[in-house]
Parts: sequence; structure tokens; C-alpha cells
Amino acid sequence: MRFRLLAPGPTPVPEDTLLEMAKPVFYHRSAEFRNLLREVEEDLQYVFQTANPVLPLTSSGTGALEAAVVNCLPAGSKVICLIGGRFGERWRSLCKAFGVEAVSVTVPHGQAVPPEHLARALADHPDARAVCATLSETSTGVGHDIAAFGKLVADTPALLFVDAISGLGAMECRTDDWHIDLCATGSQKALMLPPGLAFLAVSAKAWKVIDANPNPPTFYFDLKKARASLGTLDTPYTPAHTLVRALRLSLKRIRAEGLENLLARHARSAAAARAGFQAMGLELFAARAAGGLTVAKVPAGIDGAALLDRLEKQYGMKLAGGQDHLKGKIIRLAHMGYIDQFDVLTALSGVELVLQEMGYPLEPGAGVAAAQRVLARAIKVP
Amino acid sequence: MRFRLLAPGPTPVPEDTLLEMAKPVFYHRSAEFRNLLREVEEDLQYVFQTANPVLPLTSSGTGALEAAVVNCLPAGSKVICLIGGRFGERWRSLCKAFGVEAVSVTVPHGQAVPPEHLARALADHPDARAVCATLSETSTGVGHDIAAFGKLVADTPALLFVDAISGLGAMECRTDDWHIDLCATGSQKALMLPPGLAFLAVSAKAWKVIDANPNPPTFYFDLKKARASLGTLDTPYTPAHTLVRALRLSLKRIRAEGLENLLARHARSAAAARAGFQAMGLELFAARAAGGLTVAKVPAGIDGAALLDRLEKQYGMKLAGGQDHLKGKIIRLAHMGYIDQFDVLTALSGVELVLQEMGYPLEPGAGVAAAQRVLARAIKVP
Repeated sequence: MRFRLLAPGPTPVPEDTLLEMAKPVFYHRSAEFRNLLREVEEDLQYVFQTANPVLPLTSSGTGALEAAVVNCLPAGSKVICLIGGRFGERWRSLCKAFGVEAVSVTVPHGQAVPPEHLARALADHPDARAVCATLSETSTGVGHDIAAFGKLVADTPALLFVDAISGLGAMECRTDDWHIDLCATGSQKALMLPPGLAFLAVSAKAWKVIDANPNPPTFYFDLKKARASLGTLDTPYTPAHTLVRALRLSLKRIRAEGLENLLARHARSAAAARAGFQAMGLELFAARAAGGLTVAKVPAGIDGAALLDRLEKQYGMKLAGGQDHLKGKIIRLAHMGYIDQFDVLTALSGVELVLQEMGYPLEPGAGVAAAQRVLARAIKVP
Repeated sequence: MRFRLLAPGPTPVPEDTLLEMAKPVFYHRSAEFRNLLREVEEDLQYVFQTANPVLPLTSSGTGALEAAVVNCLPAGSKVICLIGGRFGERWRSLCKAFGVEAVSVTVPHGQAVPPEHLARALADHPDARAVCATLSETSTGVGHDIAAFGKLVADTPALLFVDAISGLGAMECRTDDWHIDLCATGSQKALMLPPGLAFLAVSAKAWKVIDANPNPPTFYFDLKKARASLGTLDTPYTPAHTLVRALRLSLKRIRAEGLENLLARHARSAAAARAGFQAMGLELFAARAAGGLTVAKVPAGIDGAALLDRLEKQYGMKLAGGQDHLKGKIIRLAHMGYIDQFDVLTALSGVELVLQEMGYPLEPGAGVAAAQRVLARAIKVP
């Protein structure tokens, strides 16, 4: 049976990138690597929509979030964490680990934090040093209005940290225009690579804070050292350099399509997924949808775990379920990176078939037809 | 021209492992990954010669060293750092970053720290919480007598931290028998993988210290969390899981050969390299040789940088030079992991040819013949 990876990360890696990963290992302190890093850096700036350096880190995305916290926030300082799911909570746990006081602005899972809530928190806590936000809350499928957050934070001394791990490259993320001070992503989502690399774009406002923080308790994630190394097209420690070589291909692929086209395509996939689930009678979970995944509620009377299990065992489709208290209650379908509109159609087909098998009443073809109608809207008839 | 990677890390990856890395990406929260982690864990314990858990970390080796320091040593505590090169110095820098006082026991580069020096330091500093040592000091080619260090440290409340990054799997490293409390390695040396994973074996004595240190300033490298996750065959954050899949092959390769045979083979390669360099009239740099690399002094009158450059440009051989003040003064040849005795012979041939071209007086064949004589000693004539 053919296997289809349709979970929101790690995502499928294009075939040419897989073959790139099978190439012999090269030396990392070399002109070859420096040229590679120069090229990749330029393309990362394009994807991040930033003129600032994008630091590569050999870690999962969480490492980049830790780098943001530990380099900018001394113990005892205060931040505002915007929380609507597991990854918003990760910010809070991270802050706690470093003795940083987190003021939580929380919304129920499935909701987005309204910018007004942030405005109030900033007014109540003018001493907040940072605001920790999540572009795409992977646990609920919610996309946040980072542009609005950025406008609010830019007028304060606080920094805006954005976990864009499952968002960047799957939905709009204008790092500079939106005043994001530390913007983090990982290799295994829209960048179409295996996990192992993280990237962090750092603004001038953030560098001022980092430079004024002389001895942060970190070594591996020391951003001053990372910046100095990047200046000579190097890394402080041995990088996952074969992944950097593979990244070059992903970024070329993105540039060839053009970010605008790519984001429009992802938006179409997302709209198709939403229409498909709704046409099957499934409710959407996210009040404000992220670009890279669609989350639907498991209908009443259907066992969510069994649904996912059947999808995998019978049809080879790996969608993700809910985590923690959402276990069995939602299904999460990714449409980011190499997962395209036809994969969405395929996934909807699988979900339809399994739901029918489980006795859920639906009109065969309703989901895929609704999705197809959305896809058809993009066609320009001459 | 054929390229040969002969530097002490990253090292060449076997062809079947390269192809394994080109396999489609799978899901990391799955029975497939749990089975993989179980299998890999068992084989890692075999290579580490430990009955304790070996924690996988998605980082370079330095991340594992940071994990050792930050989880065990509160700011203000004191450690003894044994320093004879760049990687001994890394321990000191790491301690400094976390506010840990490092008492340095230093020897000139090329020398090994004598166990008596450690005995004296332990007597002078009974309040030292840890001793930071390096199995194979990659910058000088020195191998340390960790067994002797372990005997001394075991009688004290201090922990023994060993950077075994370029040593483990290339020379003897009996984690449990030698009383190593935190033993770290990376994927890109004797484990024959690209960089991106690190591994840390933790003793019961170390766990006691870690458990008594309630809030270490770390999140990504929190060892208590890593242990809890490993208990359910999981990782706290997205692991470089395609590298873990590739690691399985490296470890099978090691088990198939048998650690004893593998170490004997590496010792032969090392002896052949030493004999070869000496027969060419080159002095060895390390007073006590590591198992995975051989370091020779560049002869007087020869430009070391030019020597390495010619080796690479004319013959496609990438050996490493000296770092920092040793730049141009030494050459470093690796013989670990997938680099075998015949690669050593090849490297010696290349060095001979280039030295001759540069006007250095030597008898053609002297180096390779001397190496061959060492290799021949292993033959048992019936």
C-alpha cells in the first residue's frame, strides 16, 4: 500500500531533495559550505521577507524558541504569552524554565487571541519585555493575526517573538513589515526537509536587547556567537550541513514558484480542505484558520482514534489527531510544503470512505466535489 | 577527480546509510519510530558499553556537553577542566557561560593531562562538583587516560563528564567500567552519519545530582524530560528522526563487526598511520595518541596550508589542518567510522606525493611501506 504523510510535520520531502540527502558527505569548513550558506541565507531572507540575518541552528524548532527567550530575557523579567493551544503553552513553559514571568493571555482551543486582548495586556503590563505569539497554532489549526500584534508591539519597548514553525512558507508572514523581532521556523514543515534545522530571523530592535544582555545562560544557542559566525559564513558548532545542502533545493523550489504564487496555492488548498470537510458535515475547529493545516471536529458518534487508525491501516494516509484533551476529538490535515491541492483531494476522499465505513451518513463525493469547486475557481477561462 | 573525506569529522557515510537517508519521511509519533528508538537504544548501550540510558538529542555534540553542564551544575559551583586543546577549552567556555567556576588543569597542546595532575586538583578542590575531560582531543590527536581519571573521580562526590565525540567507537571507551557519569558523542564521527544528532549516557550517580537540581536554566536540553520521554520511546521535541533511522544501520554495522574487532581494526589503522608518517620523517604531534585520528607535524620548511591545499586540489583528499595557533603546523588524518586501513594507505600515498612535489626529501614508498608492514602484522599465517 502506498503511504501518504499528511500530518502537519514532519511533512513529505520532494524526491530530488531526498536524493540530495543521499549524496556523499562534504567538509563543513570549506568554500563549498560558505558558498552554500551564502546562497541559502539569501533565499531564507526571501522566504522570511526580511532584510535581517536569518540564523541557522542545528536543533528542532523548539531550540530556536529557546534561543529567543534565553538571549533576550534575563531571569525575573516579564513577558506576555498569547496562548490558544499546545504551542502557545510551549512559550510559557520555556519562559518558566528560564525564570521569566509569563503573563498569560489565554483563549479556548480553537480560538485565536484577539489583538484587543494583547492591547489590554500591553497596557496592563508596560514592563513586559516581550510578547510571545504563534503564527500557526499547530495543535488547533488556528492562524493568528500577527500583523495586528506587530502594530501593537512596535509602539512599545517590548519585542515580538513569533513561533512560525508550521506557518512560515504556508501562510503570509512578513517578518519585517509586521515588526516581528524574533521569527522562528523549523526545517520539517513548509521548507520540505526532514527535521534537524531551525532558523531564527532577528530584528535590529532585538539585537539591541541581545547586545545589552551580556551573559545569558546559554552556549549552544548563543545568538551573538551565531551572528559572528554567520558573518564569516560559518557556524559556531558543527552544523547539520547535509541538511543545509538539501535546504538549498527546497528554497530554489520556493523561489522558482514565487512566494506570492506559493502562498496563493496554499490558500487554495486550505480553502478546498475547509469546503470539503464542511460539505461532509464536519465542523471546522479553528475559528481563524492557519494556512498550512485544516482541523475538523470528529462528528458525534464517531471514534476519532478509530477514524485515524482506519485511514492509516486501510488507505496508508497519516493524518494527525488531537493532542492532550483534544485526543480523539479532532483530525488535522496538513497542506503545506510538498503536500498540494491534489493531496488534499485524496485525503478528503479517504476521510469520506472511512466515515462511510464507520456508518456516518454522507453523500459519497460531497466532500471531494466541494473541494474541487474551490480549486476550479482559480481557473481563468480565456 | 574522486573526493576522499579524511578529516576527523564529519566523516564519510556508508553508501547504504546514504540511501537510507533518501527514503521517504515517516511520522515520528508512531509505532515505527518507537520500535526504531528501542532498537537503536539497545545498540547505543552496546557501543557506549553502558547499562544506563543513552539519551538522543537533536543537536551537534556541543549540545550534549551543554546538557551535561546545565543539568548538573548550578551557577557558582566549581568544576575541574582538563585542558590540552580546543575541545578541553570548550568545556571551560561552556562552564563559564553558565556561571560555573572552572579550575583549569592545562597541559601544552600535544600532551595528555597526566592522571596525577587530576589527583592533585581533586585534592586541592574537594568541593569540585565535576571533572570535565576529553577522550579524544580532536584538535591535537591526543587520547586521554579516561580509565585512570575515572578511578580517581569515582572515590569523590564529583561527576566525570567525558567529551567522547571523536573518540567513542574509534577507541576504547568503557562508560560504566570507567565510571564515566556523562559520556557524550555526536553522530558525525565514528557513528558514520551526517551531523545532527548527539547522544549522552548518564550514570545513576549523575541522575542523583540531576534530580536534586530542580530548575536548571534549560528547556531544550532538559535531561529529566529527555529521560521521561525515552521511557515511553519518545523524545520531548521533534527529533531528527530520519537520522535516527539511518543510525540504525550504522549501529547494525558496528554490531555485525563486533566492538572488539572494530576497535582492534581502528588501532591497526592508527598504528599504520603513525608508522607511515614517521617513516616519511614526520614527527607525531600527540604524545599519547587517540584512536580515531593521527596528527603529524608539518616538516620545517614546508608550508602546511599549501600542503593541505595541494592534497585537496590535486588528489581530492580532504585532511584537516591545525586550528588557531596550530594553523599550518600540523596535519590531521582521520581513521574512524567508515575510513579504513586502505584509506590510511591512500592518504599516506597522497601526503608522500605532495611532500615530494614540494621539495621535501623522502624515499618514495617509505611511508606506505611502513604502514603496510604494520597492517601485515595482523595476518595470521596458518
